[in-house]
Order: sequence, then C-alpha cells, then structure tokens
Amino acid sequence: MRNLVILGSTGSIGTQTIDVIKDDPEIKVTGLAVYGSVDKLKEQVEKLHPEAVCIYDEKKAEAFKAFGLPVKVLSGMDGLIEIATMDSCDEVVVSVVGMIGTRPTIAALKAKKRVALANKETLVCAGHIIMPLASECGIEIKPIDSEHSAIWQSLTGEPHNRIEKILLTASGGPFRGKKREELRGKTKEDALKHPNWAMGRKITIDSSTMVNKGLEVLEAHWLFDVPVDMIKVVVQPQSIVHSAVQYVDGSVKAQLGLPDMRIPIEYALYAPDRHPLPEDRRLDLAELAKLTFEDPDMETFKGLALGYRAGRLGGSMPTVYNAANEEAVAMFLEDRIDFLEIADVIEEAMDAHEKDIIPSPTLEEILSIEEWARNYVKTNSKIVR
Amino acid sequence: MRNLVILGSTGSIGTQTIDVIKDDPEIKVTGLAVYGSVDKLKEQVEKLHPEAVCIYDEKKAEAFKAFGLPVKVLSGMDGLIEIATMDSCDEVVVSVVGMIGTRPTIAALKAKKRVALANKETLVCAGHIIMPLASECGIEIKPIDSEHSAIWQSLTGEPHNRIEKILLTASGGPFRGKKREELRGKTKEDALKHPNWAMGRKITIDSSTMVNKGLEVLEAHWLFDVPVDMIKVVVQPQSIVHSAVQYVDGSVKAQLGLPDMRIPIEYALYAPDRHPLPEDRRLDLAELAKLTFEDPDMETFKGLALGYRAGRLGGSMPTVYNAANEEAVAMFLEDRIDFLEIADVIEEAMDAHEKDIIPSPTLEEILSIEEWARNYVKTNSKIVR
Repeated sequence: MRNLVILGSTGSIGTQTIDVIKDDPEIKVTGLAVYGSVDKLKEQVEKLHPEAVCIYDEKKAEAFKAFGLPVKVLSGMDGLIEIATMDSCDEVVVSVVGMIGTRPTIAALKAKKRVALANKETLVCAGHIIMPLASECGIEIKPIDSEHSAIWQSLTGEPHNRIEKILLTASGGPFRGKKREELRGKTKEDALKHPNWAMGRKITIDSSTMVNKGLEVLEAHWLFDVPVDMIKVVVQPQSIVHSAVQYVDGSVKAQLGLPDMRIPIEYALYAPDRHPLPEDRRLDLAELAKLTFEDPDMETFKGLALGYRAGRLGGSMPTVYNAANEEAVAMFLEDRIDFLEIADVIEEAMDAHEKDIIPSPTLEEILSIEEWARNYVKTNSKIVR
Repeated sequence: MRNLVILGSTGSIGTQTIDVIKDDPEIKVTGLAVYGSVDKLKEQVEKLHPEAVCIYDEKKAEAFKAFGLPVKVLSGMDGLIEIATMDSCDEVVVSVVGMIGTRPTIAALKAKKRVALANKETLVCAGHIIMPLASECGIEIKPIDSEHSAIWQSLTGEPHNRIEKILLTASGGPFRGKKREELRGKTKEDALKHPNWAMGRKITIDSSTMVNKGLEVLEAHWLFDVPVDMIKVVVQPQSIVHSAVQYVDGSVKAQLGLPDMRIPIEYALYAPDRHPLPEDRRLDLAELAKLTFEDPDMETFKGLALGYRAGRLGGSMPTVYNAANEEAVAMFLEDRIDFLEIADVIEEAMDAHEKDIIPSPTLEEILSIEEWARNYVKTNSKIVR
C-alpha cells in the first residue's frame, strides 16, 4: 500500500491521476490540494476520503470548512508544504501550475517523498536547486509530461553516457508552416485551436508560440542532465512520437502512443512497471498510415530560439524567460499585444536582464527576479500598448 | 578482454562484425569459421591472428592448410563445434546460414559461451530446444537481426508481463501494394530488387514473398516468449522503424535507425552498453520527412500467413515451412516455378505434413523432417513442373 498526495487535484493532471489509479487497491489518496475549486474538491473528498486537504486560497479554505467534512483542512503555502510532507504521504504528484509548486517540491524531497512532477516552472527556474537536492536525497524526479515521459521511457535500461542527442518532439501548434508575415494579426481565437491536445488556455498559447517547447528544452536539460544543445526539437505534427533518444551507435529509441496524458501519469506512478490502461485507446500505426517530421522554424517561432538562449545563459535567465512569457501571454489574451509580439516582449525582458544574470540564484532570488520580470513587462516594455 | 569466435566470418554479418569491433582493444577474435571461402579467410587470418579456424568443406580445409598459416585448422561439423566451445572462446557470433548453425549453437550454450545469433533456422526449427537450454545454462541469446534487435532494445528495462503486442515491421519488399494477379509471371530479376537492404539472393526473395517475415514471427515467438498471435506485422516501407513493443498501458516503444546491420551487431556485442559507431550514418527524421505504415496483405503474400499457421501448429511444422521454402526459392531462381507458386509449394508440403506433426521434435527428428520436406518438394509436388 502506498499513500499519494495530489497537489492540484482538480486540474487536468490531478483528475486524470485519480482516474488512472481508481482500480488500484494498493494506492490510497491521503491528501488533495487545490487553489480554490472547493466544490470539485468536496466531490473528490467524498469519493476518496483523504486524511487532509489544502486549499491555497485562505478564504476558499474557510468556505470549504463550512461543508463540515471529516477531513483536516489546511491552507496557504504552509498548508501545501504540510500536506506534501505529512507522515501519511509516500509520494506527491505536483500538478499545480506556476512557481507555487517549487516550495512544496523542495519540502517533499527533503522529507524523502517520491515526487511525480507535472509542474514546469519548478525545473525551468529552480532546476539547479531541485536536481542536486533530489540526488542528495536519493529521490528520482518522475516527469509527468508526454515528452519528458517519452524521453525517460526511451532511457530505461540505457547507459546515460551513451546518449548522443535527445529528440524532443513538438506538434508545431496551430500555426505550423506559417511564416512571420502570415502570423501578423493572429488572434487568441486562432491561437487557441490546438490540433491534437486539449489543454488549458495558457499552455495552448505557449504551444502556438513554441515557448512551451522552449520550456520543455529547459526541463529536459535538468531532468536528464544534458546540455541544451544536445536537445534537438523535431516537429511531429500528429503528436504520436512523444519524443526519442539517439545513442552513440546511431540507434534511436522512441516512445509512441495516442495523445493521452494517462500514459505519462501511469508511467510516473508505476515505473519501471506499467499499469494496464483501458484497451479502447491504442495506437494503430497502419490505420494512422503516416507520421511526418520537420525541423522547427526558429525564425518564425522565435519563442523557441529564446528558450535555447535562456538555457545557454542559464542561472536566472530561464526565470525571466518564463515570467516574461506568462505576462506576455496574459496581455495577448487581453488583446494588448499581437501574437508575434509575445516573443518580442520576452526578448525585451531577457535583453534587459542579461547584464544582471545571477549564475546560481537562491529560491528567494528566483522569486524576486520573477517579480522583476513581470513588472518589467507590465511597466517598462516599449512593445505593450 | 573477451574472446570472440565468428561462425560465418566472411559473410555479410561476419565481415560487419569484424568492422564493428575493429577499434576495440578489449575484444580479440580467437576463432573464425567459413563454409569454403578460403581466400577471404586467409586475409582475415593475416589481419586478426585467430588461434583457430574452421572450414566446413573438408577439401577446402585441405586447400587452406596449404597456405601454411600459423593457425590451427579445423573442418566439418566437429570443427565448428570445437571452435565454438574452445577455452579461448567467451562468445560466439553464429552467422552461418541454414540448419548448420544449430549444433554449434547448442554446443556453445552447453559450454556456457555467450551467443549472438544471426541464424534464423536455429530458432525457427529448434527454438523449443535452444531456449530452454539457454535458460538452463543462464545464457541470454542475443539476436543479430534488425527487427529482433529492435524488439530487444524496446524491451530493455521493461517488465515482460506487461507486453501487449510485439509490432514486427516489414519493408513489404519490392512487390508491396501489388495484388495476386499483378504478381503472376514475376521473375527473379524483379524479386531481387529490394528497396532498402542489400542482402543475399535467398533472403531477398524471402523478403519479396514475406516468408522472411513469417520466419521472423517464429523467431520472435521463441526469443521473446510470446505466442505468435501476440506478434503483429506492420509494413513500414522505409525500413526506419525496425520494430516496436506495445505495452498494456498503450505505450509503444520503438527502435529506429538507418538500415545498417552494424547497429544490431554492435548492440548484440555490447548490450546493455552501446559502442559508438561512425557519425556519418545517423537518422535525420526531419530530412526523412515521413514514415508510412500499412497492414500486410496476407492474401497476396500468403507466405506470411503460412508462417503464422506454422507457428500456431508448432512442433515440427516450422521446420517444414522453412525447408519447403528453401527448396521453393531455389526452384524459383531456376525458373522452375512462378513467383506465386513459392507459397503454394510451401503450403502443399505443410498440408502433407499436418497429420504427422511431432509436437516437440528432437534435433535428429528436425533434421529428418527437413530432409523429408525437401524431398517432398523435389519429388512429390504437383506444382513443380
């Protein structure tokens, strides 16, 4: 029997995690944490009977208490850390969005809890803190993300020192094949049409700019301990080849499957074993008939090139890349900047930060640089109208 | 330092094995065996200085002795067995063609030598003898074959009881997409044009009839201990996806690469490690642009369907399938039967054998059934003119 705590239990990864383990009597959910979705949390508590829940938003936590359910109710960052480190927790699924995931991840590692990580920011901004800590604590960080899970699966049983290249696949998003001039004036409605994956608005826009792939390059760099220039992005529009690893003998190992997040969730929870998933979702290569591959167009999708730049510069720069992007996407969704200007805004903030890079920032420094980048975009940008 | 013996050293696999290990000071070639190519063997001996050689053909062995080289010269089946089991042999590459490979493989296993197997017949006909013996001796049989190596690579680090299906890829050969009526009157010149792999005449014809794939289904059945109906053939005309494994979670792991036999040879010799191969031969997915997949047409390529039938019936039937095919191919190359009649001849022999199947034949019984099948095709067939 093992006890699982899910941070972000009502989000897409959280609910699918609950779905994946529903028939496994060996896993008990002992803790659930949400930002503020108390009604959905109430349903989950009534079904799963966890020991504790955490509602990050204090007011919502009070509202939840009014339900009078027989469960310990925590709140705020202290609550997230407490639930991720409590005795009746063996493993934490970190699927909250944003920098909010970083402190609970660090706390969980220090308390020797296994960590399945679906939170990008933690590694992008604090990989230099997280990875040595995980290694020191003897905990393997298990990625929940189709691409990083695919890389991890392609590395199973293979010698790390024989990796030649990581082939990180990308769908290319809804604007694949378009040139810069064709992307002028693209609206959020256009950008929100993702061809293969149903995802939240922020990540769908990130996919359309390929900043999402830039963030994934940075994550892969930390997760698999390879320099960013050993990571090659390959556009695979059908989203069937989830990523691959090329070895020094020229052999390429790849993981394929239908676009279904339950596979990376399941693998993160059960690896090196695998847990059966319903047979109605299986890849049929002959029915699919073809897979196509392209090089990414980094001129048009400058957001990806900026991710490599952030990775090469390292230190605090990935934090600026990520935070400036978050602000830029928010502004795009508010129609305050054009589609192509998302990358311009990120670049502007990175240029401004370059002279002040902190090579190995502390968590406090990361948070303060994040704040700086957001403010810079909001108040100093010459692009934002 | 480990000592390698290569049976079939002047053939395609043998020479490529020597090429793969040429820069490795940790591997010494101590034995070489050939059927009768004494001139090529002389060159190899002068370069590699093995302790012993074996020339299967006794007369050719005498001719070789006349060169007066400082090497022990063996001959015949006894010589093959002696060289495969001698003290200064740690590992045997079995790359001879035909049933001739079976006895030395058995002897090597009994003498606890590691075995890298590029010989199909050994497993197709005697898998029920070889696999339990290997397991008893604690020796893993390492396949040298692009498809089986790909399956093996896709299984590395994975739980065997979670395999759902093995996806064995096939190029489809030169007649892919053709219907039966279009294949009437096809000549050996047409059949010998393989789209991707440069191989010998026999195996190229086997590829055009897909009997080659039927034999591989039978090999995979033994190597990976799965029923033939868990093995699905997928046509992948570019020969880039060398095979794959589908697990119970729907995840598919595949091994890809350019068609280059040095990869499976290298992997067989170095697994679970990998040995660097020259960087001039690397797969570039974006340059390749696309991979296509089809279901095999088992009506047109009845030779594949017969392989499944032989596997389901088991026992001595795969021996008949293999031996009847060898005779039929020889007759096709002599223009004595039509292309489509190759499969008809195999089917005729299988039909005749069905009432006499031996469930678990001894090696002697296998050899006698092989003889029977050859004679049946040569003398009893109603198809051969």
